[in-house]
Parts: sequence; C-alpha cells; structure tokens
Amino acid sequence: MQSSTFYRTHHCGQLRISDIEKEVILTGWVNKSRDLGGMTFVDMRDRYGITQLVFNMETNAALCEAARKLGREFVIQVKGKVAERSNKNNNIPTGEIEIIVDELNILNHSELPPFTMEDETDGGEELRMKYRYLDLRRPQMQKRLMIRANMVKAVREYLDAEGFVEIETPMLIKSTPEGARDFIVPSRLQPGLFYALPQSPQILKQLLMVSGMDRYYQIAKCFRDEDFRGDRQPEFSQIDCEMSFVRQEDVWNMFEGMVKYVFKKIKNMELPDFNRLPYLDAIKYYGTDKPDLRFDCKIVDLNEAVTGSEFAVFNNIISSNGLIAGINAKGCCEYSRKQIDELTEFVKAPQRGAGGLIYIKYNLDGTIKSSIDKFYNEDKLKEIGKLFNAQSGDLILIVADKINRTRKVLGELRLELAKKQNWINKDDWSIFWVVDMPLFEPDEDSGEPIFAHHPFCSPHPDDFQYMDSDPLRVRAQSYDLVMNGNEILSGSIRVHDKTLQEKIFKILGFSEAEKEKRFGFLVNAFKYGAPPHGGLAFGLDRWVQLMAGGETIRDVIPFPKNNAGKDLMMDAPGEVDDKQLEIVGIKLK
Amino acid sequence: MQSSTFYRTHHCGQLRISDIEKEVILTGWVNKSRDLGGMTFVDMRDRYGITQLVFNMETNAALCEAARKLGREFVIQVKGKVAERSNKNNNIPTGEIEIIVDELNILNHSELPPFTMEDETDGGEELRMKYRYLDLRRPQMQKRLMIRANMVKAVREYLDAEGFVEIETPMLIKSTPEGARDFIVPSRLQPGLFYALPQSPQILKQLLMVSGMDRYYQIAKCFRDEDFRGDRQPEFSQIDCEMSFVRQEDVWNMFEGMVKYVFKKIKNMELPDFNRLPYLDAIKYYGTDKPDLRFDCKIVDLNEAVTGSEFAVFNNIISSNGLIAGINAKGCCEYSRKQIDELTEFVKAPQRGAGGLIYIKYNLDGTIKSSIDKFYNEDKLKEIGKLFNAQSGDLILIVADKINRTRKVLGELRLELAKKQNWINKDDWSIFWVVDMPLFEPDEDSGEPIFAHHPFCSPHPDDFQYMDSDPLRVRAQSYDLVMNGNEILSGSIRVHDKTLQEKIFKILGFSEAEKEKRFGFLVNAFKYGAPPHGGLAFGLDRWVQLMAGGETIRDVIPFPKNNAGKDLMMDAPGEVDDKQLEIVGIKLK
Repeated sequence: MQSSTFYRTHHCGQLRISDIEKEVILTGWVNKSRDLGGMTFVDMRDRYGITQLVFNMETNAALCEAARKLGREFVIQVKGKVAERSNKNNNIPTGEIEIIVDELNILNHSELPPFTMEDETDGGEELRMKYRYLDLRRPQMQKRLMIRANMVKAVREYLDAEGFVEIETPMLIKSTPEGARDFIVPSRLQPGLFYALPQSPQILKQLLMVSGMDRYYQIAKCFRDEDFRGDRQPEFSQIDCEMSFVRQEDVWNMFEGMVKYVFKKIKNMELPDFNRLPYLDAIKYYGTDKPDLRFDCKIVDLNEAVTGSEFAVFNNIISSNGLIAGINAKGCCEYSRKQIDELTEFVKAPQRGAGGLIYIKYNLDGTIKSSIDKFYNEDKLKEIGKLFNAQSGDLILIVADKINRTRKVLGELRLELAKKQNWINKDDWSIFWVVDMPLFEPDEDSGEPIFAHHPFCSPHPDDFQYMDSDPLRVRAQSYDLVMNGNEILSGSIRVHDKTLQEKIFKILGFSEAEKEKRFGFLVNAFKYGAPPHGGLAFGLDRWVQLMAGGETIRDVIPFPKNNAGKDLMMDAPGEVDDKQLEIVGIKLK
Repeated sequence: MQSSTFYRTHHCGQLRISDIEKEVILTGWVNKSRDLGGMTFVDMRDRYGITQLVFNMETNAALCEAARKLGREFVIQVKGKVAERSNKNNNIPTGEIEIIVDELNILNHSELPPFTMEDETDGGEELRMKYRYLDLRRPQMQKRLMIRANMVKAVREYLDAEGFVEIETPMLIKSTPEGARDFIVPSRLQPGLFYALPQSPQILKQLLMVSGMDRYYQIAKCFRDEDFRGDRQPEFSQIDCEMSFVRQEDVWNMFEGMVKYVFKKIKNMELPDFNRLPYLDAIKYYGTDKPDLRFDCKIVDLNEAVTGSEFAVFNNIISSNGLIAGINAKGCCEYSRKQIDELTEFVKAPQRGAGGLIYIKYNLDGTIKSSIDKFYNEDKLKEIGKLFNAQSGDLILIVADKINRTRKVLGELRLELAKKQNWINKDDWSIFWVVDMPLFEPDEDSGEPIFAHHPFCSPHPDDFQYMDSDPLRVRAQSYDLVMNGNEILSGSIRVHDKTLQEKIFKILGFSEAEKEKRFGFLVNAFKYGAPPHGGLAFGLDRWVQLMAGGETIRDVIPFPKNNAGKDLMMDAPGEVDDKQLEIVGIKLK
C-alpha cells in the first residue's frame, strides 16, 4: 500500500511488538483518554484499529498538559517511539505496544458528538441515522462496510474468472405501464414525458443475451417505490447475472460455485453441496417457500389420522377440503397454560388469522394431556404422536383451517418456537435451492392464471403437455436460493422461442395491444435470433446482512433511508423550487 | 471456465490446429454463408470469435440442404469434427480449422436484420440505436464493452490493493437549491416532495472521510440534466475516489500509478512519469486547460515584438490591454489563399469571434510574405519568426484580440491545424497533470469572486497570504489529468478546517441562510473532527473511449441516449398515466 510519510508512517492497526523502538507518525481520532495524574493515555482510532498513546508528565509536562485537553473525536497526529506495554491488552492486535509521544499536532477539533463511537453506542437509531457519518465511525459499522466490499470483490473475482462481462445498464429507462411501483423522473428536454428508474435490469440483461454478450453481470442499483414494510429500501442493490446457452443445472452449478467461493473468501468456510428442495415440498413441510432449515420440525398432515371422531371442528375442516396439520415442539411439554395461550394468540393474530391452536402434551411421566382428549383417547393420541416421532417431553401443536392458512400459520409458528426455544445455532448455515416453482398462479379473485414471476420464465420441458389442459400444474424453470430462511436470489431460464412466448401470452389473456405496450421492444428483439438463456439476481443487501450481521439491511447500507423512505441525514426528499418544476413541465397538485 | 456440454463443448473463438479430430459441439449465430454447390460454408459467430462450418453435399445431402436454408443471425447448434482447413485464414485465431458438421440444430430463427452485424455496417446511427441489441452484436462493439469491463477490473485491482474500500452511495438524494441541472424524482410516500439524482457523490464521499473510511472508491452513476452538446449524456459513470490524510502529491502519485496500471493491463504499455503543467502555463501556451500535447505548436506572445509600428489594429489592442499572439503552422508556408481564408473563417466563427487572422509565410526560397508586410519590414518579420523558431517552409498565424479570446482562438486553431496537417500520431499518448488552478474566478458580470470548482477546494498553502488582499490570485489545491486533449479526471484537496471554510464562504459572499441551505449537513459534519482529505473523479466513459476507440462516448456505453436525451430503443422518456402522477402528487402543466 502506497503512503507518503507526511501525515503518517503507519496506521492505527499496524504496529506490533516487532516494531519496538521505531520512530513513527500516526494520525487518527481520539477514541478515549485516561488521565492518571502522572501519565495520560489516549486511545487513537482509525479504520484499521486502535493504538495506545502515552504522555508522561515527568518527561514532558507541556505535552502531557496538551494531551489532557484533547476532546473525544479530535483528529490528531503524533510522532513518537513504539514501546512495549507493561499492561498488555490481548483483545486488540496492537495491544502489546504503545507510542511514547514526542510531538502532538491537532489536525482538527470536534464538538462533543451526540453519541459514543462504540459498538455498544448510546445513540438510538434515529439519532444515528441523522449523524450517519458519525455512526459509520463505529468499528462494527466499518467492519460491515468492509465485509460488503470484500463480498462484492469475491463475487467479481469469481464471475470474471468464469468469463462474465460486467456491463452497466441505464438508470433512466422507460416507465412500464404496470409500473405503479416505478419511481418516475420528469424530463426537461421533453417536458411532460418521464423516465423511470429501473425496478431491475431484467429486460436489458435479456437484450444483452440477444446481443450475444453470452455472460453478463452487474452490481445493479434497483428502485421500487412501495411501502417499506418488511425491512425494504426504496433503492437496493442486486448482483444481476445472465448466461446464454444454459439449462437450469448450469445456472445452479455456476452460482452454487459462486456462493461457495464467497463463503470461503469471507468466512474461510467450505460449504457442502446445496440441496434442491421442490417448491411444493417447501410449502408442504415448512409452510413457506423460504424455510429456515437450521432446525427440523416438519409440518405433518393429519386429516387422515383424525378422521372419524366426534370433533365437529375437525370434521368441518375435512369436509370443506381444509387441512388439519401440526408440528412437534420438541421438549416443550412443560409449557404452561400461559405459554400456550401466547402461542394461541400468535396464530390468531390478524395477519395469520387461525381460529385457534390445539395441543397434545406427551409428558415426561408418560401421560398425555391434550385440548382434544374429549374426542381422542390415549391410544389415538399416541398414534398421532408417532406421526411426529413424538417422545416423552414433546408438545404437538395443531392448526385446522383452509389449506394455505394452516400451512402458513404452522410455518410461522415453527419459526416462533425456534426463537423461543433457541433451536437455531447462530453459527449454522442452511443454504439450499428451491426449485420447480409453478409457472402461473391463480388470480385471487378470478382464479385465472397470472404469472407467478414474470412472463418470460420458461415452463419446465416435462410440463409442456399441461400448458393447454392444466396450466396451473405447469412448473416453471425458476429457482430461488434460500439462506437461513431468507430468499437471497431468484432466477429462471427465460423463454427465447417466439411461439412458446405467444402461447404464454395467450394463457395470460394479453391482448396484442397490451403485449406491445408492456413488452414491445423485448418481443421485437426476440425476432432476431435470441439464444436460449437464463439467469438470476441476488439481493446483495440481505446477503451482506446475513454474512456481516446487523438487525436490518439498514445496518449494511452506507446511507440508508428509514421506513418512511426518508434520508434523515440529508433530509431527503425535500421541496424544490417552482421554477425547477416549471422547466420539467409539472406542478404540484 | 465452467461449462456444461449440453449446449456446447467449445466456443467459436477457441478451436486450434491442435484440436484436429476432436468431436465438438458449438453454438452461435450464422454470420455469413457461402453456397459453393457441392459445399456450403457457414461462418458461425459468438462473443469469442468466428468458426467456419462445412457441409458437404456428397457426404450428407440432407444436412447440406438444411444448411443452405439457414438465414443470417439464425441461432444454431452443430456437432461435428474439427478438421484442418485447406484454405487457411490468418486473420482470425480459428482460421486454421473448420468443423465438418454431422448434426445441425436450429435453436432459433431470425428475421432479416435491419443492418449487417459487421464493423463496417450499413446501418446509420439512428437505426443502430433503435436496434441497439443488434448493434451490440458487431465485434467492434463487443470488443469495446469488454475493454470497458477490463479497464474497470484493472481499476478495482489497483485500488483494492491500495486499501481503498468500494462503498455505494445513494442515488436518491437531496436536491440542492442551485440544482437546476438536477433530475428530480417525486416521492410517493411524501407527495409534493422530491428526491434528486446525484450529479456526483461529492458531498457523500467527503462524509465518508469524516466517518473515517480513509480510502473510498466507487464506480458511480451520475446524472446531469443539461443540453447534451459536446457529446454528453444525461447519465454517465465516474470512477470516484477520496483519501484521508493526504496532500496533493500523495493523490497524484496514487492515481498516476493507477493510470499506469490500467495502461499496462489493457495496452501492455509502460507509461513514463506524467508532467505537471501549471494551469496558467496551459492557458498561456495552448489557450486551453486541456491541451493536446501530442504535438508542440506553442502560442507565442507578440505584444512586445510588434510594438512601435504604424499598424493601428495592433496598436489599439496593445493600448487596450489586449493580446497579440500567434502559432507556428510548421511546414504550411504553401497554404493557398483559399486555405488561409478557411482558417480566417474558422477564427471568425461566432463561437470564437476573432476579428481576423494575420499570416507570415517563410517561403522555401527564403522570401517572406505577410498580410502585415506594409507595417513590418523583412528584418522585423525575421525577428518575429525567430520567436517561433520559424524555418523556411513555416507559416505563422497571428490573432489580436482581448487576452482570453486571443488565447482561446489560437488554442482551437492549433487543434484545427493538427487535424488538417495530421500532426497527431494515433499511437501517441499525451498524459499530464494540470495543476495550480485558481481557487476563485471573477463573476462574468460583477467581477466578484465565485468558486471555480466547488467551495470545498482547499487554497494552496503558499497563497493563504492573498486570501484577503487578492483572492483571485489564490491557487486552489485542485488538479486535472489531461489525456490527448481531454480532461479525464478532476479533483482537489478539500477544506477540512472550519475557520478556513468560513473565510471562503465570506469571500464568496454567502449569507448564513444560504450556507445552511446549500451545504448545511456537510458543514455540520465538519464540526465533529473532519480529517484532512482530498480526491478526484475520472470520467470513465471518456477514458474508455480514448482506450477502446469510437467517435463519441455513445460508442462505449451499452445503452446510450441520443443528443436529445432519448433512448431510441426503449422509447424513453415516455408518457405516464394520470393515476401515476396523482399518487406522487403532481400534474402536468
């Protein structure tokens, strides 16, 4: 690393016991200082670490007086000699040495900052967002930004070696008619017309395949103007990739390789090969298309097992094609009435909407206690327990509702139990493909097929036969990668054949005009020799959060917006002059 | 490089004489085909190259018939055996082999494309822009995009090794009050308020220095909503860099190293050390702050030399503090009257506005002919010639006008002559720093100091003394790198000291309110220990154009806009629904 020695000869994370007696110059921020009367110790911090400075009243009183006056976050430069510490600190790499300071220059002063620059800071999130430049001084935040940079570096190394070309696609694109979530940008040269910011470079990367670029990637800024529930940001970053002349397996192998490469580089971990979980199994066993498999606890369907009792609730569910199913809360048989009530409230919460929660306790003394023991005798309850491999000490929790709701509620209950019971080892990783997703899904109102991802997903070749007779049965060649219960990438093999594309548009019920308006220039491009192609996009922010830690993706984005889409530091969005509106031909409503 | 063998075993640029007899599978586009009766030859193209396919009527008539029906740009897959060509083509790496095809699969058809996919295409720019995905099939364009990617890769390699951290700054930021050139983005969650797209990450990267990130870089998308004269784009890419604890020399050394590294990687060239040309010298000798020094031809000031004649034009210029100066058009003494008239029109054109052009011809026979020989005798003209090192055969061209105009016009005349006379060797590179720029410039109307770059440029320490007495004399610590007559980077050491910053604001005449509104959050950040810092930004598009060729930066941008800011392929900007305007709280004027 180049460095002139005018400001510093070393940085604050660099000096070791082997450097003793060296004359050095360091710069950095005053992190902490301790005045012990005869001696003053200052911890000086930069991006690279912390080094202890020593000022001695006996040998240089004036300098020591000056050091005593240093405030927190002053920027200083010191010249001095490296010495061995008598009182070593094994927690930091520079903990065996200190600098006996000969010269102290204050490069800048600081007012008292509004919170402490430490990992365990006293600043709340709003304050830290307002002073993000100070928040980013905290070692934890700097480390996260560096992990982010190193992950992206590893991604590029891998993709470059695999012949991918990094290509920038434009940020000012065409607004799509369904683009209610597009950010729009008024044009000054053509007043009354608007660009849109891309929700993703999907169409542009497909055009790059049409252009023969063969293998493309980009760390792409994407924009979506929606409510930011669920830890979303109006702008976010994707690792966006596309390949020509590939099948699903080729894409999976390529990017499984990439994820493994990144784990090796960042965490020095060798990941095992990733399993491939069919979408329908994910839903059936875990109630979600992105299950967390760091713990087991599968959903078990019970309609058959519970048939034939007098229990009206179950009988009604069965006769209305609903689903009775449960999970085994391993080792939870001693949950109190209050704890079970809490779980019941959890499944009944409005966003879940289950009618209630049924339990069966397999007590440690061999007895069984259940909220349905009026309708099922002990033998029957034992039989049900066997379906869950229930042992003494276990608690089975059962939901009976419409199929989708039963699965979804149990999927969430599964996660809730894992949290309560600490089933998740923070050092474990659960990474696998979810494959064989449906190509279409039924419209909530009409039941007619609408596309599940986008209308360029290719159907699975084995399911072409159902395209006319039973489109909802057709699997797409689309796939997600799930990491610790988060979808971190999503992709598909695309349709490249005009006839097939027309068929899909027909199933979706698109008119010619609608087709032209929504997908005109891509459909046009496909006339001129589109190669077979497919790809995917990683949600970079989420992946970094999983690797680098943090409560939300805001913790790994240098300058994030809050949940209302505001940047509290810059105070954006803000007002603009009428004149500025006028030149782009708009006015406020 | 990973590759499954389902679609292809090799790409079209890969096979060599050493592969003969191998069974291979290739995919690609039909570039050209020749039907020679008994044999049909097809050139198949992909990103990697071109491979010749052979179909033989005698050995496989059906296959040969099928090959004859292939249209241009069909996507095909072939299986066959590598054979030595009898008729070798030394112009392409695969020119010694061909594929004897056993099996041909058409992967996709193509309509007849609107222009040929060759470097010398028959498509005009508008047509090529509309079908950019086809334009990008031309090998030249693919090569340019790959040079671009490789340059960025080299930049990252260098900066990563030097400890720079790649950090993303937001695209949705605060609109600045002077931001008439900001693109604005209406907010849906806060109707009536607007984000702006960044003209550069200047303030954000300075905040990253305040945050202690020490060394930052980013390939940043920037936006400027202005007329696109002079080959500009509404969105463009910058290599944006900032460093803490540096002086000018440190920045120069760091990025001179980077430019050298990129030239080595991309062109295998070892560049010599870069000269540092003071700004005032650039203006004095070349009439511009970005001279092309691939040829010499300095401007020579003549006020002294021409003083004392009866020539009223010169005398008036001298007495009104104007400038008489000229350049030596080496070897142009035989320019005809018509040619000199053309140059006279050139300097008189409205954008230049000179009153006329005076010439002195030093003929090959030793005689001298000049448009001012009425006022200056041969001895005097010889004396003037000496100031230019004029030889027999040379032509001196003189302009007399206001100082700035004389220099500017001669600077442009110098370039015009270089073009006409082919003074520039296309393989030469002229790369140097322009340094010591003025901190302020006089406002055109009032003459009051306004900032030449931005108000955070640090004054030169040697010129602090003039800050009060003669601010226009103060040099900034700012610098450009000039490459073949183009400014490819611009940067400065920033002010980090509050007191100095206040002084500069005062000289600029900013009120407290204006300061707060324009620079509030940066000024606020500077209260909390800003380190000394500086940096720069490269114009990536222009640098790529210089390295990769092309007439305009549009040739090195994957999906550029035209001079009216339109994307002809996507037809953007476009109309948006009233409903969409309503949700962001605006309407059309």
